[in-house]
Amino acid sequence: MSDRYLYSFGDGKAEGSYKMKNLLGGKGAGLAEMSNLGLPVPPGFTISTGVCTYFYQHKQTYPAGLRNLVRDAIGRVEDIIGKRFGDASDPLLVSVRSGARISMPGMMETVLNIGLTERTLEGLLEKTGNERFVFDAYRRLIQMYADVVMEKGNGNDSGNGQGVHDKMEQALSELKAECGYQQDTDLSTDDLKELVLTYKSIVQDTLGQPFPDDPYEQLWGAIGAVFASWNGKRAIAYRRIHTIPEEWGTAVNVQAMVFGNMGNDSATGVAFTRDPSTGEKLFFGEYLPNAQGEDVVAGIRTPRRLTITGSRQWAVDHQVNEEERKAKYISLEETLPEAYHNLVDIYQKLEVHYRDMLDIEFTIQQGRLWMLQTRVGKRTAQAALKIAVDLVNEGVISKEEGLLRVEPGTLDQLLHPTIGQRTEVTMLTRGLPASPGAATGRVVFSADDAVQWTESGDEGKSKVILVRNETSPEDIHGMNVAVGILTARGGMTSHAAVVARGMGKTCVAGAGEVMVDYDRKRFKVRGKVIKEGDWITLDGSAGRVLIGKVKLEKPELTDDFETFMSWADRFARMKVRTNADTPKDAQVARDYGAMGIGLCRTEHMFFEGNRIDAVREMILAENAEGRWKALKKLLPMQREDFEGIFRAMDGLPVTIRTLDPPLHEFLPQEQRDIEELALKSGVDYEKLAVKVHNLREINPMLGHRGCRLGIVYPEITEMQSRAIFEAAANVMKNGVKAMPEIMIPLVGHVNELRVQAEIVRKIAKEVMREKGIEIEYSVGTMIELPRAALTADEIAEVAEFFSFGTNDLTQTTYGFSRDDAGKFLPDYIDHKILKADPFQVLDRDGVGQLLRIGVFKGRSTNPKLKVGICGEHGGEPSSIEFCHDQHFNYVSCSPYRIPIARLSAAQAALRKREWEVGK
Amino acid sequence: MSDRYLYSFGDGKAEGSYKMKNLLGGKGAGLAEMSNLGLPVPPGFTISTGVCTYFYQHKQTYPAGLRNLVRDAIGRVEDIIGKRFGDASDPLLVSVRSGARISMPGMMETVLNIGLTERTLEGLLEKTGNERFVFDAYRRLIQMYADVVMEKGNGNDSGNGQGVHDKMEQALSELKAECGYQQDTDLSTDDLKELVLTYKSIVQDTLGQPFPDDPYEQLWGAIGAVFASWNGKRAIAYRRIHTIPEEWGTAVNVQAMVFGNMGNDSATGVAFTRDPSTGEKLFFGEYLPNAQGEDVVAGIRTPRRLTITGSRQWAVDHQVNEEERKAKYISLEETLPEAYHNLVDIYQKLEVHYRDMLDIEFTIQQGRLWMLQTRVGKRTAQAALKIAVDLVNEGVISKEEGLLRVEPGTLDQLLHPTIGQRTEVTMLTRGLPASPGAATGRVVFSADDAVQWTESGDEGKSKVILVRNETSPEDIHGMNVAVGILTARGGMTSHAAVVARGMGKTCVAGAGEVMVDYDRKRFKVRGKVIKEGDWITLDGSAGRVLIGKVKLEKPELTDDFETFMSWADRFARMKVRTNADTPKDAQVARDYGAMGIGLCRTEHMFFEGNRIDAVREMILAENAEGRWKALKKLLPMQREDFEGIFRAMDGLPVTIRTLDPPLHEFLPQEQRDIEELALKSGVDYEKLAVKVHNLREINPMLGHRGCRLGIVYPEITEMQSRAIFEAAANVMKNGVKAMPEIMIPLVGHVNELRVQAEIVRKIAKEVMREKGIEIEYSVGTMIELPRAALTADEIAEVAEFFSFGTNDLTQTTYGFSRDDAGKFLPDYIDHKILKADPFQVLDRDGVGQLLRIGVFKGRSTNPKLKVGICGEHGGEPSSIEFCHDQHFNYVSCSPYRIPIARLSAAQAALRKREWEVGK
Repeated sequence: MSDRYLYSFGDGKAEGSYKMKNLLGGKGAGLAEMSNLGLPVPPGFTISTGVCTYFYQHKQTYPAGLRNLVRDAIGRVEDIIGKRFGDASDPLLVSVRSGARISMPGMMETVLNIGLTERTLEGLLEKTGNERFVFDAYRRLIQMYADVVMEKGNGNDSGNGQGVHDKMEQALSELKAECGYQQDTDLSTDDLKELVLTYKSIVQDTLGQPFPDDPYEQLWGAIGAVFASWNGKRAIAYRRIHTIPEEWGTAVNVQAMVFGNMGNDSATGVAFTRDPSTGEKLFFGEYLPNAQGEDVVAGIRTPRRLTITGSRQWAVDHQVNEEERKAKYISLEETLPEAYHNLVDIYQKLEVHYRDMLDIEFTIQQGRLWMLQTRVGKRTAQAALKIAVDLVNEGVISKEEGLLRVEPGTLDQLLHPTIGQRTEVTMLTRGLPASPGAATGRVVFSADDAVQWTESGDEGKSKVILVRNETSPEDIHGMNVAVGILTARGGMTSHAAVVARGMGKTCVAGAGEVMVDYDRKRFKVRGKVIKEGDWITLDGSAGRVLIGKVKLEKPELTDDFETFMSWADRFARMKVRTNADTPKDAQVARDYGAMGIGLCRTEHMFFEGNRIDAVREMILAENAEGRWKALKKLLPMQREDFEGIFRAMDGLPVTIRTLDPPLHEFLPQEQRDIEELALKSGVDYEKLAVKVHNLREINPMLGHRGCRLGIVYPEITEMQSRAIFEAAANVMKNGVKAMPEIMIPLVGHVNELRVQAEIVRKIAKEVMREKGIEIEYSVGTMIELPRAALTADEIAEVAEFFSFGTNDLTQTTYGFSRDDAGKFLPDYIDHKILKADPFQVLDRDGVGQLLRIGVFKGRSTNPKLKVGICGEHGGEPSSIEFCHDQHFNYVSCSPYRIPIARLSAAQAALRKREWEVGK
Repeated sequence: MSDRYLYSFGDGKAEGSYKMKNLLGGKGAGLAEMSNLGLPVPPGFTISTGVCTYFYQHKQTYPAGLRNLVRDAIGRVEDIIGKRFGDASDPLLVSVRSGARISMPGMMETVLNIGLTERTLEGLLEKTGNERFVFDAYRRLIQMYADVVMEKGNGNDSGNGQGVHDKMEQALSELKAECGYQQDTDLSTDDLKELVLTYKSIVQDTLGQPFPDDPYEQLWGAIGAVFASWNGKRAIAYRRIHTIPEEWGTAVNVQAMVFGNMGNDSATGVAFTRDPSTGEKLFFGEYLPNAQGEDVVAGIRTPRRLTITGSRQWAVDHQVNEEERKAKYISLEETLPEAYHNLVDIYQKLEVHYRDMLDIEFTIQQGRLWMLQTRVGKRTAQAALKIAVDLVNEGVISKEEGLLRVEPGTLDQLLHPTIGQRTEVTMLTRGLPASPGAATGRVVFSADDAVQWTESGDEGKSKVILVRNETSPEDIHGMNVAVGILTARGGMTSHAAVVARGMGKTCVAGAGEVMVDYDRKRFKVRGKVIKEGDWITLDGSAGRVLIGKVKLEKPELTDDFETFMSWADRFARMKVRTNADTPKDAQVARDYGAMGIGLCRTEHMFFEGNRIDAVREMILAENAEGRWKALKKLLPMQREDFEGIFRAMDGLPVTIRTLDPPLHEFLPQEQRDIEELALKSGVDYEKLAVKVHNLREINPMLGHRGCRLGIVYPEITEMQSRAIFEAAANVMKNGVKAMPEIMIPLVGHVNELRVQAEIVRKIAKEVMREKGIEIEYSVGTMIELPRAALTADEIAEVAEFFSFGTNDLTQTTYGFSRDDAGKFLPDYIDHKILKADPFQVLDRDGVGQLLRIGVFKGRSTNPKLKVGICGEHGGEPSSIEFCHDQHFNYVSCSPYRIPIARLSAAQAALRKREWEVGK
């Protein structure tokens, strides 16, 4: 099959089918399928994507024999239609359209009315008796063809000066101005005749050659232009954004023309079999009477609704009275009821056949309905969910299929406030979509200011957006009160991004045009100044920074959502936990369905209130005794935090990581701040400065952090363990079931874990004896260094669980600092050295190999080993699937990604099952 | 056998043998072996190391039945000697000595004359008729026993105030002062009798218990003290330095006493069967007449030479005339010729038996020779080499055995100037022995000053030592002219250390006590000030910083060295290459036997002269065009470097690494320097400062460096490739055979290598066409990231060779920044979390596993893949052995480590062969 270059369709049958989408493209497959179903499809043929591949592998030439195949296929169309291509008396006209495997709307070229020549014009005039229609068609052909085929398709588009397209547009505008016309439809037949002449001379003058007057020359020109447009700038850009492989190529569809612009009994339209925004089971669509498809797309005329209900609703929304509606905006159902009912029959038949919501295109030529396209319709997350649940409830698809129908990543849209698609906005600049959702607030430039503004009691100051070059743990209190965070530097996994996502807070990171001037409390973007207190809006889902206040839309979780998620949990094998550091986050996560905490970072707790003072006292202490004194102040505070978290996670496991970041993160770095701290702490400035200097590291990521802290300062681990177990004992006395899992970070050698686990177990025993209560707990480790994965067999002899910290593991395996990789990673993606950012999508070949090795070796010595993941990848669908395949017990992600993870886990299990039964 | 706790020896036979060293310790095994050979050994027995293990595993108690075994063994000694232990009329006295597997000189305890009590004293007096001797022996016993057994052995040594030892020393001094004596030998019998009483009352007063008067109580006290001393502070410290496992334990040797202090027909001495300093085949030793062994060790009296020749040489050296020599320093050969000739017979017999140079200890009691110890003698590297070559030439051992006899690491001593062992020095402070050898020079504090001083033409300023907090690539020109480098910070693999070793230059790094004050051009060490221009001396082999000028000894390579090395090369399977960046280094390395260059770093070339200006111009360029302009200036300079290197390595492969370090290393970092550069380069200061700021990285080790530079700026790789191939073509036209191997650094994904290799191959083709010459070359990569090793199968499809960069691979596998690990690695070693610094000794379990995976996977897709190592481990013996076992083709190390590597490679091959034939 795959050897064939050309597939015909029409007259109730086709050589292809819907399943051959890869070869025929989406459009070609849909046309074939509709033909097979006996639906009214203008006959035609599809030149396969294989020809596109050949075309690019052979210096833009075609396989031998293709010309004959095309000629034969045209012959078959001629036979069905009863007209001949190039026939002077009754000519066949055809359209030439692109069609890739996946719809790339508007990214490639289309040429209509191919086959109109000086000769055939006469025949068409005679046959239709509609001079205006014929000259309009001819005028459109010349304009499209000259632009798409003769100029762009042949690389004549130098980009300098005016091309044919612009010149023709200008001629048209001048003519309309001269005659005082508002719309193209005002043009008279004579005007169109004049335009044809003008256009032809523009072609001759600009391109140095005449508009071709041979139908086959036109046809091959159009085919070549469509193939060439696969590698046009727009198509390449689109493919990059949507990670569509270049190798796929496009098919070319050649099809007999039907005309929706042959009078008021003609029309053209598009429809969805259900509402693509809400998913409601309503036939939803628009049409234009007496128009060609391109007019709908161009948006010059206001399209009308298909159904009476839809039309009336539209009228209400647009404050149009019933009289006016009927005059100007009448529905297809009313104006062409026969064609409309045909269309309804067809869409219902198609939906049953495809078992999904469809997007269809049709044309009505002189009262007769023709289907031009069908495909599974794009939809919002909300619609996808509702449609899936409805189709299951209608008995059309199984629950398993329903679960597989929704793209997990889109569920994000359901949880964050968003900017409506039709809301008008003024762009300021762009950054990375670091944490989704939208936020509107007033600009502040420091964490302290953020707190001061929001605590001022002034309602007008309650919403702030924190703008920084980059954030650090010292900014946490400010990030906590801000509604959004904007940074000038840093990537998708920068501090700002990670923390914001953890907090479920909108963040745009790395907006490179933002020039922050802290002293003057303002920032500039290409000359435009935004001062403290100015309103801006962040669109964290798209990385947009917008000027001023923008009205946000708040989503609500529906019953369908709950139903759908409960199905997901039924099929998923892995549990989904959350990364949460506070009782509040823990509660949010639990509301979204978290089945425990997979990562509770204890260091964030160290920044709250005056705790930082005690932390600094500990760091500045001369010896263990001094450190203990400071740690004793922290102990009750940490204990209280843990109590809150245990309560929020009553009956569920809570994995708590011991202190991880390098100590210098807790000390000020700027001279002025050091001086201030010296005054406050009573420590000599010189001594303090030396301490700060000594703690600075050349590569802090690989420095004195993680378990290395607890090994050099065992008293830290002792204090933290005590806080955990005392908290557990306290809440358990109030009937709460605490299930602490203590996790030692950054272990590379089993001995590191051994000494830290000993401390934890010793303290556990002490506290249980003191409190007279038995606490179920376990001790495990992060696997976030290659060496840990490679020696997992040894480590698993001490660890009761592994949690793969894939952020750091990716950094060390690739040797990429995620703080610095912004300098080269974009180049890597652009040059296709890497397919995806490994900090976003788990690198299966490298990092994934270490996961495989780690799980395999770990379970080889400890078959009961519990295995999870708590890196950013724990909330990314394809990475979650990989974890499922590697027999993980759970994934852990930020609260707002939990629904994504739950669905991904279910899909992974379902796919694995499909694979296992050999589907 | 290993179950036995006790092994007797004496009277021409023994229960143990030399091969049971692990169980009997070195001393016990030697005594057993000599007994078996029928040599005169005082009878005794060895309590095995197994008892030591038991002792520590069972709260310092002994296995059941040991007391009976000891009593029986004492009985056997009594039978041989014909005296009884504790017999009032003719008592047997015994010594109790430690003896570990490996000699730990002076680190553990010894007690002599055990068995002397009030009762046995009388019998001994009667038997010997030598009152002075008997009371001296008793006095020594009390002093030793009270100190070693009663105080230290029982943990009574509080460390506060005066212990028994000090009090006894004070009593002795007071007595000598009172009587006007100079030496202990001046003491009269009455003096000794008085001392005995004084000592006994000191014991009673200080320790609250009497000196034990029961022989068995004394014996068990001494045995316990020896076992206890295995975990004494000194022993622990020694074990740590020499990485001797704690589990080994010590044996205890109980042996009948013989006395070298029974008159002028008695003596005690030590000897080496060959000269341990030079290896010359000369019987070499010293003795003291009328003395006990401890007197020789104590060094109070000047020992005499054994042989006439030796004695005469000594006299010449010490300007002692023949008369005086005969009177005071006469040889044993002259004074006790019979015993001497017995000794000669015995040592010759022993050397033949052991087939190695031995260290022996003996005592002559009233004319009769007794052997007290024999073991393979410690020796300098020079001696080891000569002895091995001589023994091979004498037909005593095979070449293979000879090669295995020399510890590769010691060859270092042969290449660097050193400080003679007897040279008097004044310590200033200590740092890490970062680069071996010794250097004397005057202190300067900046690279520029170093250059200015050495270029001043003033002879007095020609030798400088560069002192810095730490060095950076900007200091290269200063390091290049300095004779040594001292840094206050950084570890064994800091920039200073690595570069210094590469240059074969002495370096002491991380001398933490050094407080540098750049402004005042001086540094302080605990209050002591060293100013610019002051002389200091660095001992890079021991990490010592010495005050003032010290006379250095310069080694010369002998013919034996050449012979020995040629044998090594014959047996080695791996080649040994060098890491060299300049023609000069390349030549030095070739002189030491390098078989090519395994790593030529091109970045060091970028710092020389005014090249840095062009480099900076490139970095500051706005676009590829601007970069090309600057690169074109660098091209001829790089080409010239490569020509020199190819010439030095005529006919040998030269692996050249493309640019590796992050670009910020080439820019100034301090504001003043940036201002200066702005002036010089004509670039706006603000712009320059922004550039410097933007290039700064949070984790530069994981940042924009390695192939990531060449990928973002392909023109750099193009320029470097062109320089390499043009240089190769140029020298080839003059008959030199250039064999370039271009190495792409920091590859983590095959695509990175693919795009860089394409550039290299494209330029190679261009140059070969331009020059009309065929150049043999290959393209490969560093494997220095975990991901590279894990995906080596993919990478090997593009690479022709792998060179494992184990420095960076260790950093990423362990997640240790070698610049920062100094904060916790020492704790790790102290707490036994790691056995060795993984930057010095390859971590076989983790990093080594990646090497195994890398080689295996690499060769699975490319069987011809050449594999080498170019990290620091390429010059470390145990790591080299590992590389051999993993089927590497070569190792590469700094020039001065080449002999070490050649020998290590040979030993690895020989050991593998032994293993393969099942020895």
